Amino acid sequence: MFQIPRGTRDFASEEMQKRNYVEGLMRKTFQSFGYREVQTPTFENLELFTAKSGDTIIEELYSFKDKSERDLALRPELTAPVIRFYVEKLQMEPKPLKLFYFGNCYRYDRPQKGRYREFKQAGCEIIGTDTPEAYAELIALAYEILKNAGLKNIKLNIGNLTILSSLFASLKLSKDQQKYLTPLIDKSMFDDVQKALEDFGIAKSISEDFVQMLQNSDIKQLMKYMKDDENIKNEMAKQEEIMKLLKDSFKIKNCQLKMSIVRGLDYYTGVVFEIEAPSLGAEKQLCGGGAYELVKLFGGNQTPTAGFAIGFDRTLLALETENYKFPTFKLDVYVIPVNQEMVPKSLEIVQTLREQAINVDIDLLRRGIGKSLKYASSISSKRAIIVGPKELESQSVTIRDMKTGEQKTVKIKDIVEFLK
Amino acid sequence: MFQIPRGTRDFASEEMQKRNYVEGLMRKTFQSFGYREVQTPTFENLELFTAKSGDTIIEELYSFKDKSERDLALRPELTAPVIRFYVEKLQMEPKPLKLFYFGNCYRYDRPQKGRYREFKQAGCEIIGTDTPEAYAELIALAYEILKNAGLKNIKLNIGNLTILSSLFASLKLSKDQQKYLTPLIDKSMFDDVQKALEDFGIAKSISEDFVQMLQNSDIKQLMKYMKDDENIKNEMAKQEEIMKLLKDSFKIKNCQLKMSIVRGLDYYTGVVFEIEAPSLGAEKQLCGGGAYELVKLFGGNQTPTAGFAIGFDRTLLALETENYKFPTFKLDVYVIPVNQEMVPKSLEIVQTLREQAINVDIDLLRRGIGKSLKYASSISSKRAIIVGPKELESQSVTIRDMKTGEQKTVKIKDIVEFLK
Repeated sequence: MFQIPRGTRDFASEEMQKRNYVEGLMRKTFQSFGYREVQTPTFENLELFTAKSGDTIIEELYSFKDKSERDLALRPELTAPVIRFYVEKLQMEPKPLKLFYFGNCYRYDRPQKGRYREFKQAGCEIIGTDTPEAYAELIALAYEILKNAGLKNIKLNIGNLTILSSLFASLKLSKDQQKYLTPLIDKSMFDDVQKALEDFGIAKSISEDFVQMLQNSDIKQLMKYMKDDENIKNEMAKQEEIMKLLKDSFKIKNCQLKMSIVRGLDYYTGVVFEIEAPSLGAEKQLCGGGAYELVKLFGGNQTPTAGFAIGFDRTLLALETENYKFPTFKLDVYVIPVNQEMVPKSLEIVQTLREQAINVDIDLLRRGIGKSLKYASSISSKRAIIVGPKELESQSVTIRDMKTGEQKTVKIKDIVEFLK
Repeated sequence: MFQIPRGTRDFASEEMQKRNYVEGLMRKTFQSFGYREVQTPTFENLELFTAKSGDTIIEELYSFKDKSERDLALRPELTAPVIRFYVEKLQMEPKPLKLFYFGNCYRYDRPQKGRYREFKQAGCEIIGTDTPEAYAELIALAYEILKNAGLKNIKLNIGNLTILSSLFASLKLSKDQQKYLTPLIDKSMFDDVQKALEDFGIAKSISEDFVQMLQNSDIKQLMKYMKDDENIKNEMAKQEEIMKLLKDSFKIKNCQLKMSIVRGLDYYTGVVFEIEAPSLGAEKQLCGGGAYELVKLFGGNQTPTAGFAIGFDRTLLALETENYKFPTFKLDVYVIPVNQEMVPKSLEIVQTLREQAINVDIDLLRRGIGKSLKYASSISSKRAIIVGPKELESQSVTIRDMKTGEQKTVKIKDIVEFLK
């Protein structure tokens, strides 16, 4: 027996219904924000990903060679491919460009609970604007997508890497010291941050203020603390405006400043954000994004870019954790020819119903009425149509309500009307 | 500048709209036939494909190794993965199982016009029945999918590999001789078949009858010719019944017997079929399928299986060749704040409209009215809403019809009503 590759999944029809349903809701929200869908290939030239993330990413990639011995890789994420697409073909389009996408991504991880080697992401990029309203709208979009997908319990945290860098700069830390601190900050291990700063010889009063600012959620306080830092005055005002627009114009209440969001410090710049579903525990992050720089690195003309990625699989998990009621697919009608001679006429009826966009299945195993009714029930058909010789004489069939068991004789020409 | 991998494609939003639209129509038709959607991983263990198609397929595959040095391959087609899924997890489900899917597939071809290294297929499998009505319904499904997708000019050809094998047997050819003939038959090069048979030393009267039968579209004639062949009596009757059901019950008129359909002789068995779009010239085949045997080879319990695959990209090409009018996406409203102070209120209006499932975009570049109206027009917005200080005083905005240029002052609370 052959087995599915480790870390990947098969989706049965119940799961696919849920996935298509959620994807449809997400697509609608993207479109309502004026975003337009694009798609890029499943694999790219390997150098696209090493250019963005450095050579260390190779270990996490599925890579192989093409016929000209060029190195290719299954995409680990979708921003690099979409920006490659933009630089290669879309630079002349009117700005801002609002692009969204769904796509499977691939990572060569050790499989763990809730982490797969093939996983699905939804995401978007906005290219060509860096106004506060552009960033506020982008962040609101991420929030609305998850809300409209049906999630009740989500939290939006907003940070800023330009401001965080300035905070770091005030401590005069070495690169290595910063590198040691960032994962601790990212994991909100503030006691350890405090301890490390003391080990680095930072005065206690300064390190305590720093750690307090990392945990502070009041932007006014932060502005006061950093008031002498001329470099980030504008960035600070922008951050304040973004958060004001999110609260007042987009009416997002559970949105908080969180200066300890680190993400990729080399790649992101300015505002960053994360959305989490607290119900998921340790793996609670559903979405991450912000402003970043990639266009120039990929050979395009400098222009501002921002975007986010939503973990599709984790969003579904969060919906299930919240006991979300997904709509279930029900077959409208199951047709049962009582004997072999009834088959041609039965198929003719089936064909007529299907032309009216009615979902119809038919016994294809010549099972007889009893077994067929049982099967109709097992696949949750709403009704059964029984085609027998006696009824057929008067151009009629028997229609059975599978829930109540009620049966009625209906003229063939009236079936469509009867079903509606 | 980074480039897209050779033989792959980026899809811009206009293309994605078409693709999503056609996929949606196809999905509806699959569902109306009682089929249910499934999905398998993008890659499988390499041996799955070599088991099905032999080692020669390796040259056409993108393959690579996983962390345990196991050989994986990007799927070149979807039947093997779906049958692997069935054998691994679905054998206990009530029969027949009707499964459909969409998925990208990968082939290491030299790229040519209309052939890509990453391409999309739609397809299905029916597992657990081999009645004539099951096959007729399967073939009708393929036909209806293409018809409902909007194609006007398609042709359905039906062959039978059990009968074709019997025709071959009557000539007493060697394996090598058969192997030489099949591609010629597949390409309808009947003069060359005739010539080859003479070279093989077959009597002219016999070879002429054989070649005539390959081109014969009248099943009664074929039955007459093969009347002494007891082995295929049942198969012949079945083939006749399938074709009768397609014509009489499913009302498919342009459906023809075509004994020269060869496909994979090792893999298919019994009825096979192809649907072509003559408008496409040499690359006209849109769909191929039939009954096949794979479950036992994959370690499952013997059960009949049949299915088909539709080339999604080629279907789109055929629609374009027929000048099919795809619906175009239009933005409902483009909102223009006349100055920076209008931004918060404008975003609030935008948010209210989006909650009513209206697709709204807004100027995020502070461009002013003139440029913004030009942009709104470039992205085909139906209307523009201009938010200015004077109108705002009376809780109103200006709504402009982008087609006629007509403008009207509307109270903010009445916008949704006005737009509907």
